[in-house]
Amino acid sequence: MEYYPGSVKNLIRHLARLPGIGQKTAERLAMHILQQPAEEANQLARSIVDMKKRLRLCSRCFALSDDALCRICNDPAREQKVLCVVEQPADMASIEKSGAFRGRYHILGGVISPMDGIGPDDLKIAELLERIEQEAIEEIILATGTNVEGESTAAYIAGVLAARPVKVTRIAS
Amino acid sequence: MEYYPGSVKNLIRHLARLPGIGQKTAERLAMHILQQPAEEANQLARSIVDMKKRLRLCSRCFALSDDALCRICNDPAREQKVLCVVEQPADMASIEKSGAFRGRYHILGGVISPMDGIGPDDLKIAELLERIEQEAIEEIILATGTNVEGESTAAYIAGVLAARPVKVTRIAS
Repeated sequence: MEYYPGSVKNLIRHLARLPGIGQKTAERLAMHILQQPAEEANQLARSIVDMKKRLRLCSRCFALSDDALCRICNDPAREQKVLCVVEQPADMASIEKSGAFRGRYHILGGVISPMDGIGPDDLKIAELLERIEQEAIEEIILATGTNVEGESTAAYIAGVLAARPVKVTRIAS
Repeated sequence: MEYYPGSVKNLIRHLARLPGIGQKTAERLAMHILQQPAEEANQLARSIVDMKKRLRLCSRCFALSDDALCRICNDPAREQKVLCVVEQPADMASIEKSGAFRGRYHILGGVISPMDGIGPDDLKIAELLERIEQEAIEEIILATGTNVEGESTAAYIAGVLAARPVKVTRIAS
């Protein structure tokens, strides 16, 4: 690294912190950015800053969104009475990629994990109950993970919903 | 891609333009940056902008440098009478990595390539001759590539130096 100027070393160090990017790849990427026209490199930098500035969570389903309501919550063509409950935004992206689900989502923001001190109140479960009532939801698909935490979280939510007039199904995510 | 908000799509698109970064890797990196604290993500962005702003070529050897003179040209411990002539800054980095060379460098900025319309005047050859005289250089190591253009460039420079009191050697780079 010593043979690179400070500004290049600094960029390599930051790139090498990204997952799956080792020292050699970081050097290769830095050399590429170095040779790019300034405008192109600055666009990459700007796209990072812009995303961090604009991105928030949808106020209804807690998906990633640039606006108060996400694209799916805003889409009248999506089935309004079915919610798919997932752990994280990435899980929603996986299901959307498959194209098989036409309803809407509810993102919990994690799983119940006593070891990590995460209980039901730390997830968007109260918000889910509120939505079920306000939006007259008829079916809930629990698509949390198949590990212990994912199963416990699905079981907990199924328990809470048992007394309510909503159909609950479980799929592996 | 449709399931990502615009700001995330934009970042993925820019990341996927980097060499060796496919669509899936770009999505993975974007998801990581998205979950980073804003300060960390902004530091990565800033390191790109800073490098593009600060980086220039050393006024003596044409290596990458944050200052008028690069670290090696500024280092009195390097052998002053030996210059290694390379095509590009990356070639200098490779030789420095080996740690075997203790002299200084001269970066041509390319190779003679009539097909691409690049002649001797487009490279830093006049600057090399000036340095040999001004710095009383005693030995030149030609470390251009082993392809046709690299060999031709080495041969051309060897020809120009034949009449001068300087030892010329050729190594494969």
